[in-house]
Amino acid sequence: MKIAIAGLGTVGAETARQLLVHADHLATSAGQPLELVAVSARDAAKDRGFSMAGISFEPDPTALAGREDVDCVVELIGGEDGPALALVEKSLEQGKSVVTANKALLSKHGQRLAELAEAKGVSIAGEAAVAGGIPCLKMIREGLSGNQISRVSGILNGTCNYILSTMEETGRDFDDVLAEAQSLGYAEADPGFDIDGIDAAHKLSLLASLAFGIAPAFDQMVISGIRSVNALDISCADNLGYVIRLLGIAERVDGSISLSVQPTLVPKSSQLAKVTGPLNAVSVDGQPIGNVTAVGPGAGAGATASAVLADIIDTARGRVSPFFGWDAGSLSPCHSPDDTGKQNSFYIRLTVYDRPGVLADVTAVLRDHHMSVESLIQQGRSDEGVNGSVPVVITTHEADSTSLQGAIAGIRSLDCVLEDPAVMVIADTSDDS
Amino acid sequence: MKIAIAGLGTVGAETARQLLVHADHLATSAGQPLELVAVSARDAAKDRGFSMAGISFEPDPTALAGREDVDCVVELIGGEDGPALALVEKSLEQGKSVVTANKALLSKHGQRLAELAEAKGVSIAGEAAVAGGIPCLKMIREGLSGNQISRVSGILNGTCNYILSTMEETGRDFDDVLAEAQSLGYAEADPGFDIDGIDAAHKLSLLASLAFGIAPAFDQMVISGIRSVNALDISCADNLGYVIRLLGIAERVDGSISLSVQPTLVPKSSQLAKVTGPLNAVSVDGQPIGNVTAVGPGAGAGATASAVLADIIDTARGRVSPFFGWDAGSLSPCHSPDDTGKQNSFYIRLTVYDRPGVLADVTAVLRDHHMSVESLIQQGRSDEGVNGSVPVVITTHEADSTSLQGAIAGIRSLDCVLEDPAVMVIADTSDDS
Repeated sequence: MKIAIAGLGTVGAETARQLLVHADHLATSAGQPLELVAVSARDAAKDRGFSMAGISFEPDPTALAGREDVDCVVELIGGEDGPALALVEKSLEQGKSVVTANKALLSKHGQRLAELAEAKGVSIAGEAAVAGGIPCLKMIREGLSGNQISRVSGILNGTCNYILSTMEETGRDFDDVLAEAQSLGYAEADPGFDIDGIDAAHKLSLLASLAFGIAPAFDQMVISGIRSVNALDISCADNLGYVIRLLGIAERVDGSISLSVQPTLVPKSSQLAKVTGPLNAVSVDGQPIGNVTAVGPGAGAGATASAVLADIIDTARGRVSPFFGWDAGSLSPCHSPDDTGKQNSFYIRLTVYDRPGVLADVTAVLRDHHMSVESLIQQGRSDEGVNGSVPVVITTHEADSTSLQGAIAGIRSLDCVLEDPAVMVIADTSDDS
Repeated sequence: MKIAIAGLGTVGAETARQLLVHADHLATSAGQPLELVAVSARDAAKDRGFSMAGISFEPDPTALAGREDVDCVVELIGGEDGPALALVEKSLEQGKSVVTANKALLSKHGQRLAELAEAKGVSIAGEAAVAGGIPCLKMIREGLSGNQISRVSGILNGTCNYILSTMEETGRDFDDVLAEAQSLGYAEADPGFDIDGIDAAHKLSLLASLAFGIAPAFDQMVISGIRSVNALDISCADNLGYVIRLLGIAERVDGSISLSVQPTLVPKSSQLAKVTGPLNAVSVDGQPIGNVTAVGPGAGAGATASAVLADIIDTARGRVSPFFGWDAGSLSPCHSPDDTGKQNSFYIRLTVYDRPGVLADVTAVLRDHHMSVESLIQQGRSDEGVNGSVPVVITTHEADSTSLQGAIAGIRSLDCVLEDPAVMVIADTSDDS
C-alpha cells in the first residue's frame, strides 16, 4: 500500500520514521509492504530525523489527494476546516482511504465525511483522534460491539490531568502549576483549548457517537474546564476520599443522552483515580459485559503515531469498518435535554462571611430545594474579625440538576456569600473496586 | 449470517439469549441479521432462559459443522481435545468460520487450526479465550499492531485474583479463602487448573503468540501457582509497599522470549495493584506507544458472551484477521532458555530456628551467590525457647535466576532452615505511575 503523509510535525515525523525504520515488521503486520511515497509540510528542507530519499515532496497538501501513486492519505495537519478538510474531502472523492488524528475535524464534519467514504467504498479512520495511543474507538466499535452501552467516561485531556495530578501531589495552586506546565511544554502558550475542556469535548463527542449511534454533538454538551479548581478543592476532596479529574461522561439517561465534560470528584478506590500525569483513560459500561477501562498515554508523538500506524495497518488488511460502527447516514441526531433528570451527588464550595447564622441560611436554601447535605466542613476560620471570610465545603446526597441550579441561585443571592459558589459533580463510577 | 452454538452452559446460553433479545441492535452492529439456527448441548429439554422455537437441536455437536444452513460455528464445549477439537476442525474444513472461547484448545492446537482456517479462507476467532470480556487479543493484534512489543503482562485468572485480594483485604489465610471461594462458586471443587496457574498459562501462551509472532509455547513456561502464598506473605508485601498478584509475563530478553506465570509482588502505585476481586488486566509495553493497560471482568457469562458476540460481529462484517495477527505458518518456534539472564529483585521468606548466628549464615550464602540484600525483616519471635521457629523475610536487589537458584539451594542446605524457602519475583512494572 502506498502512503502519503500531510503534516510533518512531531506526530507526522514519528509516523514516517516508524514506517521507514520498521518497514519489515510493519509489512508483516499489514500483510503487504507499506511504502511512504509522498509527504507535504511547510518546510521541505527541515531535518526531521528520517531520509527523504525516494519520497516526493508536495508543497500543497491537497496535491497528495490527486496523486495516482497514493492509496492511503494520512492527514496530520490539524484544524477543523481549511487545508485539512480540503485534503480529506478530496482524498475520499478520489477513492483513497484516509487516516486522520484530527478530533476537531471529525467532531465537526465526521458524519458527512464518513458518509462520503461509505459512498466511495473507502475507509476513513481516526483512532489517534481520541485518547492518543489507547485503541478506544476500536474497543467500542469492535471489541464491545455486542453490548448495549450505557455509559462512556474518560480522562481525555493529558494537559488537564497533568495539572490536576500535580496539584494533588504538591498542594500547589492552579496558576502556578499551569505556568510550570507551559514552561515544560505540557501546556500551550494559549492553554484555553485544553484547560477549558474544548479538546476533551471534541473527543467525547466521537466516543458518544460510536457508543450510542448519535451524530457528533459538540454543541449539546455541558462543558466546564479546570480553571476554577483550586488547592483547597483538591485538599477537601482528598479529605473526603476523592481526587479531582476532568471527566468526560456520555450516558444514557431515561432515553436521552447526557453529555458533559467537567471537573469531577472521583473515589480514590476507582481505576480512574490511578490515572495520573499525562495519562488518559476510557471506561465503558454496558451489558452484558459490565465495565472495561483502558489506560494509556493520551498524547505525544509515539502514542499518537501508534494509533495512526494501527489505522494504516487495518486499512492495508482490509479490516475496515464504517467509522461510527454502522452506516453514517443512520446516526440519530442527539437531543440532550438541559436536565436529563439524572441524579448526582455534588460538591459545593462557598466563600462566606464568618459570622453567626451563615450556615443556617445556607442549609435552609438547600432544604428549600430538596437537597440533602451529606457533609459540611467549615475550613480553618480567618485570623480574626467578624467580617473575615471562610470557605465552607458541602457535599450533598443525590439530586437532579434543576434542584441544584435552584439551590445555587438561592445561595448566590444570600448576602453572607462572597464569591460565586464552585460546584463539582461527585462521580458514581462503576469501575470502583 | 447464520449461526450455530455448540455448548449451552452459562456462556452459550447467555450468547444465545443476547442474539435473540438484542437481535435488532446486533444486526445494526453486524451490518446484517445474526440468526441463531442451530444449537447442540447435552440436554435438549433444559430451560436456559430463551425460546428454542425455530432453532434446530443437534445431539451431536459435530453435526453442526455439516449443516448447510450454518455460516459460523460457535464452539463453547471446552476441553483441549475431544468433541471441541473435532467440531472446530470439521467446521473449518467445511469452510465455515469459527468462534471459540477455548483457551486450552487454542493453546494446544491453535497454530494448526489457524493454518487450516487460512488455507480455507475462513476465520477462527477466540477473543473470549483470554481475559474474558477485555478485548485484549484485538488490542494486541490490531490496536497496537504498529508497535514493537517488548512485554505483555497480565492478571489472567479471576479465581486467583479473588483469592489473593480477599486475603489482602481480610488478613485470612489461603485455605480458608479458597474454601469460601469454592462455596460461593468462584472456585471449582477441583481448583488446581486455576490456582496452579495452568489456566493463566494457556492464556499467556496466546497473548505471547500475538505479541511476538511465536507459536504458542505452553510447555516452555515457568509456572507456579498461588498455593504457597500465605497471610504472612501478604502482610510483609503490604509493609514493603506491594500487593501480591498471580502475574503472567511474556517478555523479550536479549533476543529470546521469557514466559512465566507466578505470584509476584506488584507496587501498590501500579495500575495492576488496583485490579481486585475477579477482575483481569492485560498490560502491553511497546515502542512507540509506551504502556497501555486494560482492566475488566475476566470471567462470567456476560463478559465472555460479550467477547463471543464481538467475534461473531467481526466475522459478519468481514473484519477478519489471521488469528495470530499474521500467517500462522510463519510463526517462529519459541525457544525460551532456562535462564534468560533477566535480572529481577526477589522476595524470599524463610522459616528458621530462632538462635544466634542464623542471619549470619543466611546472608553469607546470599553474598557467596552475589545476591545483595535490600531489606531483611525478622518477624515476631516465637514465645520462648531457642528451638522455636521464626519467619525471616528478605528482599534482594536485582539478580539473575542462576544466582537465585544457587542461593536458594545453599539456604535450603543450612541446618537452621526449617522449611522450603518461599520465593517470589518483585515486579518491575512500567505502568507504575
